[in-house]
Amino acid sequence: MNNSDLNNLKQRLRQFAEERDWEQFHSPKNLSMALSAEVAEIIEHFQWLTEEQSNTLPKDKLKEVETELADTFIYLIRLADKLNIDLFEAVNKKIKQNEIKYPADKVWGSAKKYTEY
Amino acid sequence: MNNSDLNNLKQRLRQFAEERDWEQFHSPKNLSMALSAEVAEIIEHFQWLTEEQSNTLPKDKLKEVETELADTFIYLIRLADKLNIDLFEAVNKKIKQNEIKYPADKVWGSAKKYTEY
Amino acid sequence: MNNSDLNNLKQRLRQFAEERDWEQFHSPKNLSMALSAEVAEIIEHFQWLTEEQSNTLPKDKLKEVETELADTFIYLIRLADKLNIDLFEAVNKKIKQNEIKYPADKVWGSAKKYTEY
Amino acid sequence: MNNSDLNNLKQRLRQFAEERDWEQFHSPKNLSMALSAEVAEIIEHFQWLTEEQSNTLPKDKLKEVETELADTFIYLIRLADKLNIDLFEAVNKKIKQNEIKYPADKVWGSAKKYTEY
Repeated sequence: MNNSDLNNLKQRLRQFAEERDWEQFHSPKNLSMALSAEVAEIIEHFQWLTEEQSNTLPKDKLKEVETELADTFIYLIRLADKLNIDLFEAVNKKIKQNEIKYPADKVWGSAKKYTEY
Repeated sequence: MNNSDLNNLKQRLRQFAEERDWEQFHSPKNLSMALSAEVAEIIEHFQWLTEEQSNTLPKDKLKEVETELADTFIYLIRLADKLNIDLFEAVNKKIKQNEIKYPADKVWGSAKKYTEY
Repeated sequence: MNNSDLNNLKQRLRQFAEERDWEQFHSPKNLSMALSAEVAEIIEHFQWLTEEQSNTLPKDKLKEVETELADTFIYLIRLADKLNIDLFEAVNKKIKQNEIKYPADKVWGSAKKYTEY
Repeated sequence: MNNSDLNNLKQRLRQFAEERDWEQFHSPKNLSMALSAEVAEIIEHFQWLTEEQSNTLPKDKLKEVETELADTFIYLIRLADKLNIDLFEAVNKKIKQNEIKYPADKVWGSAKKYTEY
């Protein structure tokens, strides 16, 4: 997906909300809650599985998780739209910061937060 | 459909994890937890604000929220990658389903779930 | 300090899990995920409501939210049990710390974090 | 903790909020968000650990997790208070329902949801 496809999705989701007079519910506050609820639907699929089992989901489970990832992405796009945040730009900035915070040679194999170094 | 920038991000994030020997921590189970933790960082910014205040964040707050959206998107991309799920495709499927579940004329102005109709 | 009803609940929930051979799933890691999923069920009830509406829930909604609070408390008790943490003691310690971090005269009417003072 | 100790905590937390003029922020909607943010702080401690490691936390980590459990319990008590829900009563009701939904002989050793039987 390039930025114009993400923009297309953004427009489609805006239109979807406008056609249903749902914009009134889409404050950033509310959207952050909806986003949180969708991510928890993903968590629910994995909570009793081992890490290994989570790597090898059966087909029907995978289809359900795909739907929750879609819902999560939908609310993330809506939230970024409302806050006028460019998701690609934000991620690029963050990756650069992470490359500095977590130099490969220093953090190799360790999951500690950078503040613990 | 041009998926190249999202694929670029996906590759960069894979490489970032490999360079640091972090793949060992990136089971879908763990990634769903990390995703959940990042979304909660967004929630924290809005929990004591009114919906109106969430619409008009000061510049410095907006910058912080931008970082959390980036972290959220990063873990979403990693999780989709591990599960071999195409985010763009998943969202397109979901929007179509939603257009059927929530016909505009039926749900106009109401936030009820479709099961409540 | 009388801790007996919380201890009763703790014992009942242990027994419930043992009778079903569910202890194998109840690592603290897994229980934190289950706790997170239940809290999100609460969030779902409030995400499209205004703060005012959340103060005046209709009877049927209130019954549903009561169930999610129960589920949340159940997993919190299980998690504390597994980590050998005394919830009552933990809260008492935290309230004392909060009384120092947030002196009433200093924070009156403001939702800022203590680091922002 | 018996119900009068839980009531004591409830009163203390009410007073704590009133002394700071924080009641204005404590709608159930907002409290559900704060509760969600605290649970995510627990998740953060476990996300890169294996289930086994989560069973054997070092002393300093355990102390940190104890604090997050305290914060979680605090917001749960506040939320129940605002909704006039009795947490002990709610849990007792739920345990009874669970005993019916999940008969020990039927679900022994399986983490499936009751709808999957």
